[in-house]
Amino acid sequence: MIRQQYIFFFGEHLDRLADDAKDLLGGKGTGLAEMTTAGFPVPPGFTISTRVCRMFYEDEHKLPPEYREEQGRYVERLEKLMGKKLGDASDPLLVSVRSGAKFSMPGMMDTILNLGLSDASVEGLAGKTGNERFSYDAYRRFIQMFGNVVLGLSKSMFEDELHRMKEEKGVGEDMGLEAGDLRELCRRFKELVRRESGADFPQDPREQLDMARDAVFRSWKNERAIFYRRQHGIPEDLGTAVNVQAMVYGNMGASSGTGVGFTRNPSTGEKKFYGEYLTNAQGEDVVAGVRTPKQIFEMAQEMPEIYRELEEVTQKLERYYRDMQDFEFTIQEGKLYMLQTRTGKRTGTAAVRMAVDMVAEGLITKREALLRVPPDALDQLLHRQIDRTQELKVIARGLAASPGAASGGAVFTAEDAVQWAHNKKKVILVRNETNPDDIHGMHAAEGILTSTGGMTSHAAVVARGMGKCCVVGCGAVRVDEGRRLFTVGETTVKEGECITLDGSTGEVILGEVPTVEPQLTGEFAKFMSWADEVRRLRVRANADTPADARQAHLFGAEGIGLCRTEHMFFATDRIPVVQKMIMFAAEAKDGERKLAELESQLAKASRKDKEAIEKTLADLRRKVEEPIRAYKDALAELLPFQKADFLGLFREMDGLPVTIRTLDPPLHEFLPKREQLMVDISVLEHRDACLEEIETRRAILRRVSDLHEFNPMLGHRGCRLGITFPEITEMQARAVFEAACELVKEGKRVTPEVMIPLVGHVNELRRQKDIVVRVAEETMVRYDVRLDYMVGTMIELPRAAVTADEIATEAQFFSFGTNDLTQMTFGFSRDDAGKFLPFYLQEGVLDKDPFVTIDKQGVGELMRIGADKGRKARPDLKVGICGEHGGEPTTIGLCHQFNFNYVSCSPFRIPIARLAAAQAQLKDEGVRESPTV
Amino acid sequence: MIRQQYIFFFGEHLDRLADDAKDLLGGKGTGLAEMTTAGFPVPPGFTISTRVCRMFYEDEHKLPPEYREEQGRYVERLEKLMGKKLGDASDPLLVSVRSGAKFSMPGMMDTILNLGLSDASVEGLAGKTGNERFSYDAYRRFIQMFGNVVLGLSKSMFEDELHRMKEEKGVGEDMGLEAGDLRELCRRFKELVRRESGADFPQDPREQLDMARDAVFRSWKNERAIFYRRQHGIPEDLGTAVNVQAMVYGNMGASSGTGVGFTRNPSTGEKKFYGEYLTNAQGEDVVAGVRTPKQIFEMAQEMPEIYRELEEVTQKLERYYRDMQDFEFTIQEGKLYMLQTRTGKRTGTAAVRMAVDMVAEGLITKREALLRVPPDALDQLLHRQIDRTQELKVIARGLAASPGAASGGAVFTAEDAVQWAHNKKKVILVRNETNPDDIHGMHAAEGILTSTGGMTSHAAVVARGMGKCCVVGCGAVRVDEGRRLFTVGETTVKEGECITLDGSTGEVILGEVPTVEPQLTGEFAKFMSWADEVRRLRVRANADTPADARQAHLFGAEGIGLCRTEHMFFATDRIPVVQKMIMFAAEAKDGERKLAELESQLAKASRKDKEAIEKTLADLRRKVEEPIRAYKDALAELLPFQKADFLGLFREMDGLPVTIRTLDPPLHEFLPKREQLMVDISVLEHRDACLEEIETRRAILRRVSDLHEFNPMLGHRGCRLGITFPEITEMQARAVFEAACELVKEGKRVTPEVMIPLVGHVNELRRQKDIVVRVAEETMVRYDVRLDYMVGTMIELPRAAVTADEIATEAQFFSFGTNDLTQMTFGFSRDDAGKFLPFYLQEGVLDKDPFVTIDKQGVGELMRIGADKGRKARPDLKVGICGEHGGEPTTIGLCHQFNFNYVSCSPFRIPIARLAAAQAQLKDEGVRESPTV
Repeated sequence: MIRQQYIFFFGEHLDRLADDAKDLLGGKGTGLAEMTTAGFPVPPGFTISTRVCRMFYEDEHKLPPEYREEQGRYVERLEKLMGKKLGDASDPLLVSVRSGAKFSMPGMMDTILNLGLSDASVEGLAGKTGNERFSYDAYRRFIQMFGNVVLGLSKSMFEDELHRMKEEKGVGEDMGLEAGDLRELCRRFKELVRRESGADFPQDPREQLDMARDAVFRSWKNERAIFYRRQHGIPEDLGTAVNVQAMVYGNMGASSGTGVGFTRNPSTGEKKFYGEYLTNAQGEDVVAGVRTPKQIFEMAQEMPEIYRELEEVTQKLERYYRDMQDFEFTIQEGKLYMLQTRTGKRTGTAAVRMAVDMVAEGLITKREALLRVPPDALDQLLHRQIDRTQELKVIARGLAASPGAASGGAVFTAEDAVQWAHNKKKVILVRNETNPDDIHGMHAAEGILTSTGGMTSHAAVVARGMGKCCVVGCGAVRVDEGRRLFTVGETTVKEGECITLDGSTGEVILGEVPTVEPQLTGEFAKFMSWADEVRRLRVRANADTPADARQAHLFGAEGIGLCRTEHMFFATDRIPVVQKMIMFAAEAKDGERKLAELESQLAKASRKDKEAIEKTLADLRRKVEEPIRAYKDALAELLPFQKADFLGLFREMDGLPVTIRTLDPPLHEFLPKREQLMVDISVLEHRDACLEEIETRRAILRRVSDLHEFNPMLGHRGCRLGITFPEITEMQARAVFEAACELVKEGKRVTPEVMIPLVGHVNELRRQKDIVVRVAEETMVRYDVRLDYMVGTMIELPRAAVTADEIATEAQFFSFGTNDLTQMTFGFSRDDAGKFLPFYLQEGVLDKDPFVTIDKQGVGELMRIGADKGRKARPDLKVGICGEHGGEPTTIGLCHQFNFNYVSCSPFRIPIARLAAAQAQLKDEGVRESPTV
Repeated sequence: MIRQQYIFFFGEHLDRLADDAKDLLGGKGTGLAEMTTAGFPVPPGFTISTRVCRMFYEDEHKLPPEYREEQGRYVERLEKLMGKKLGDASDPLLVSVRSGAKFSMPGMMDTILNLGLSDASVEGLAGKTGNERFSYDAYRRFIQMFGNVVLGLSKSMFEDELHRMKEEKGVGEDMGLEAGDLRELCRRFKELVRRESGADFPQDPREQLDMARDAVFRSWKNERAIFYRRQHGIPEDLGTAVNVQAMVYGNMGASSGTGVGFTRNPSTGEKKFYGEYLTNAQGEDVVAGVRTPKQIFEMAQEMPEIYRELEEVTQKLERYYRDMQDFEFTIQEGKLYMLQTRTGKRTGTAAVRMAVDMVAEGLITKREALLRVPPDALDQLLHRQIDRTQELKVIARGLAASPGAASGGAVFTAEDAVQWAHNKKKVILVRNETNPDDIHGMHAAEGILTSTGGMTSHAAVVARGMGKCCVVGCGAVRVDEGRRLFTVGETTVKEGECITLDGSTGEVILGEVPTVEPQLTGEFAKFMSWADEVRRLRVRANADTPADARQAHLFGAEGIGLCRTEHMFFATDRIPVVQKMIMFAAEAKDGERKLAELESQLAKASRKDKEAIEKTLADLRRKVEEPIRAYKDALAELLPFQKADFLGLFREMDGLPVTIRTLDPPLHEFLPKREQLMVDISVLEHRDACLEEIETRRAILRRVSDLHEFNPMLGHRGCRLGITFPEITEMQARAVFEAACELVKEGKRVTPEVMIPLVGHVNELRRQKDIVVRVAEETMVRYDVRLDYMVGTMIELPRAAVTADEIATEAQFFSFGTNDLTQMTFGFSRDDAGKFLPFYLQEGVLDKDPFVTIDKQGVGELMRIGADKGRKARPDLKVGICGEHGGEPTTIGLCHQFNFNYVSCSPFRIPIARLAAAQAQLKDEGVRESPTV
């Protein structure tokens, strides 16, 4: 019986529709029905159900007579309830018509207001409101909206007409037009409608209603809506409902009014009724800023009863929805109507405070509280923020790569950054892109701005790691490094001129802007402790230095999931040693191989051949002695540096596991750039510079050229380095285990986990593991201690995921390196994807940037395969993630779902990850975010 | 009962051991047993079974008394059979001792000959053979071999002793030592053994035998053998057998002799008994070349009975093994012994001829014949070959990248190659590496030599595609392009000097060497027709030009599986147009986007704003007019070129399907190199060249820099180009369908299949397919014809494989692009892998080069996943492969196993692929290669 009904009065039969309500009434209609049922003062109305929409499409845009009868009955019922009649010449009922599908959807017709106005009823409205200007203004807006949305006429034609009228009257603003002018404008609008549509503007409100309803139905099938549904997998045949609701007016005299408000302070979270209102005004007036609205507490004086009712109603709303409400209301002739209420947006700080307060109030449980704060919102609590009360001169906007705010003089090279910082000046490093050479400059700068690169470009990744404010991919910024300036359009910023970055919004602001210190309040700590009680996933930090480790520990990291040892190589006191190692490494290894070959030849040689071989051998020994010694010396010099770093890390983490990755990047990253050397040499040649100078550079260029790769991302890096240069792995392992053993001797606990990067084949891991285990055992014997350690691998190549069962025979843990895994799986270089990825996202080829949120279908599937196969081969395999995604809430949800043991992320994302992990667990347990009953 | 036996006389109980024979007797022992059982004249002996080896390890290298008794009985039985006794001072029995596991395995002890010699028996041997020198030479060799292999003494100590002896005697060669000298040498050797091992050289032959047996058992556990078993998954506990066999001698007078032979000519395949022999000689003498052996037919005169017996035995052997045999024999005092027989190696030409002949003879079936020719052996039949009868001056050896042989003058740039070829001179293009700029030079050259790059480098891939001889990665070659020469060690080859390449061996040869024309004989055609009857996989060609297509069709291609349209872009008359298109493409697209934005703003703008917007719009229109026009003009100019290419391809393929891939490589491949421009500009600047000249280059450099990518392999290429520049796809589709429609109008059949490259997400394919389908439908309407066509995609990204079910909703076919899939799956750049891949292969980190043979565990698994998911979503999905692997037999076997529809490969590999496909099917059906019964 109920299912045969076409239209539902707000609240009618809601209890019996139960779970089907949204299917039939759509999202908006269901909300209105709920509010009405709960006794809130909502302007009455009815919902034309989605059934009607489906009928509309099934029968060529026609509706059956029994439907039309039913609609007539509901209109009458609404008229009776409101005591007004549609089209009435003295006191007309006006309605709004809104679409409302099951899922909210852009591209569909939104709202037509003031439906019911006609040449007759506009006079009635004028009489009733005593405001002729308002009435004709409403009428001309209605004609335009109806003309555009329902009749499909171009907005600009109406705008032209308005413009002409203003010119005639010699006024600049719409507000300058008087009632008479607007009446004339209505006439011209109707004229326009007749001329362009070939029919008179409908004067019968019932006809207006039918036409508006059909326009809503038609908008279900417009291009943008279809595209959106296809993108989001929303079935085509759901259809949309149509909501028809009585209009109410706040401008009907002194006992009328309108306002907006929040049940708690959305900025601080304080539990205090908060809002603004105007008497004898419309909602538009509050927004337009023509009159200054009053604070809501003033209403207690002006309209004490309404104020009490409003307070009561909104508190009931908050209890009903069990969350802070953002509401709009209108008082029409002493009667309060709630026009809209929704869960209010809030700052991260407010979100945490409200969640904690509401638990104290018994409004929600701790577990629900945890679902109330979007993890990313915590970011605000962890970084300095721009003081938004100031006026800001925003000159450009890039990608918000690393949150926080920073001001400083613009500098354009890493060296300058170091120099200026040395002179105690705050600087922002501005580059087209950064690379590992710039790291010391990034350290010295307050913030980093780049004109290219995406969310996982070098600058972004390193800055996030440092917890340093960073804006990248700011294409409007044109950097002229040579002239030490950058331009944005007409604006030029020279070296030393102050700029401010907001790394949470991507804004680049001219001049210095005050910033606000973060507060890790008691509520925040309490909130995080609840998250820790709930979550199953462990949270570790990506930290390369003792300072990072300290920060991470402070933020609650339960270990280090990734220490990138190469970052220790870039320090100014080490890079010359590293470069020496690289210059001689290949020569030394080649020499050693040739020596071994000759020696084995010698062993088998006849006496006659022996002499010749011995001579060659002696020559070769002399030749390779130098590079072999230089290579070994460099490694020996690096050992104490690395060991000191590890000692620091282990101390900071105080027994928690520390995952140390062996050298990963290609060696040429540590040498000068090839193009620069080529240019230098050819310039020197044409200057007839001394040959020696040229020859020195040529020697470096030869080595750099030897190391040059067409696709360094797919080149000689990761474990491939450790396999061709096993001495490097050996040195690193020695540094790890000597540091660990020393601390154990001191009575400390240390849990090193050595991680081999870029393993694609189990044999690669086996070879590297053999070295690590041998060094570990030797070192423990030497120090006469035992300690627990693990050897594992990154899973960052598709082949590693697919052959994870083989790899797990050697690996004690897996850590998914999702940056590289994403690059390989998509075949995207994160440094180059800027050429097409923004276009892909804009055009909807991809939903989300896969370098920000794990691509569940592709990369996620490989993670699932990898984890499953790995655990099948080794049930106690520890599985984690240490890519940039490790701190991203959706990805953390996926890791939870795949039963990972831990995620690892930048120190500044640790609290976010802890919360996201808790939320993933709660969702697993079926705790709902906003239960409505 | 049998299973309790430790030792088996050759042939004993073979019938009852059945399938377990190899487990118990090892491979070699089983072969000897089979031959003996079949009645062939094999020197008798016995096999100590693998059981004994296992016992040896189970009981700390000790063997039980009952075993020792059994061995004693078998030695006696052998002595009785041979009429000689071990250690006999007048006519001693001598034996060989050989290891023989179930699977042949390097690293294990191989052979000890002449066991049984002692101070006493050496005299007996001398008496019996009448050759004292021979006897003592055999004795000293035995002592050395036994000392080294069994006692573990260094070979070089024995060599030193020999050297000293030669010095004393003043002779240069071993042959200069006389019988007395050798007797003295034996004394010194025994002395050496006593000194070094602390025990006398064993004089008891039974003790010698026990010690040799144990040495074989111990060698089962040596390092290399263990490593080999681990690499090949051979169980550790199999153990090895030991074969003890009576020695026979061909140097016991005029009625003795020795020789080697083949049952058919291994070079031509002719059915003719073929070989060489020497009377009164040992096998060594034939090999050493001291005496010139006689042709075997001379034996018919010299020893007619033995000759008849030999002929009869070897023909029986051929019938028994059902294949051509390569045999060694010894005649001892008028009695023929077969020392070794094995299936003979042969050339590709011979293999085909023998297979066809043997079918005609009824020896094997057609299906067996197909398994007799390794597919790669066909290569010889398809290319010119070096005449190996000549003496060759090989100066270097690189990777055999593309088979065939070619001679010509060395040239060092593509331009020079074209110029010289234009003057009718044959040239070899010598480069460090090639790139797409060099294609016209590669076309002009007879062969290509590069110093860098691997089997799938640009040079290798393109040369194979052209069927042109190519050697790559020849590191010894140092190219000095500036001075137009290359050096190899001390040798310098200047421009124009003649060199010869052998693309089948990788040899670089000084001077011109005659080559032999390939013969596609009638037997070859017949053989291939058998393959076609059997195979299920279709075979298509990768062909970019009508000439390639013609060649492919000739070799039996059943369609084109990959036409790389970009190869059409590099022709000298087109590249300027392509460059023009690229220079303006981005500017035009940016302009268009901005225009569209402004136009939509204009539509919504108020009259007041309109004017300003219209002005901006007009300015912008003027500014972008030029690039937009230039971009469209360039595309319009390219259309007829592409269309003409497709017309040619379609005509050649005469109705067979032609898969055309849309533009794939990154655009910068078509522009000059960035480094070169940078160098040019800085040189010009320092020369104070005119500004205009500098500015022109700067403009190009800006565009090249815009297009520069850190990892072009993972950059803006494949469908990403077609999505950001849809006009290119549209132009290509138009060329395809206009060409197709024109031919259909002429009454021809055409089956175009448009293939979208580098798809990672179904949305990418959908967008490109939409363009192709729209153009196809428009064009067919315009020409008023209908034709069948398909739109499909490459699967070359791991994501495409993993989400193949989604992609298959849009793709009508999949073609696995295994080059890129391998690169992405391993994270290897094929252009850079030379830095570590050779080391990986040498060290056994990887078994095989994954760019040559599909990596079954990783890349193969993704192929399986991709094909399965794709077919699940679309059961009639056509699946193929078009990477370089498509012509590689192992990979073809995998494609067959995965139920692919076709493979596609270079034209010159088509016959190989046809045969490999047939073999895959036969193996499926259980046809065995060499059934032995």
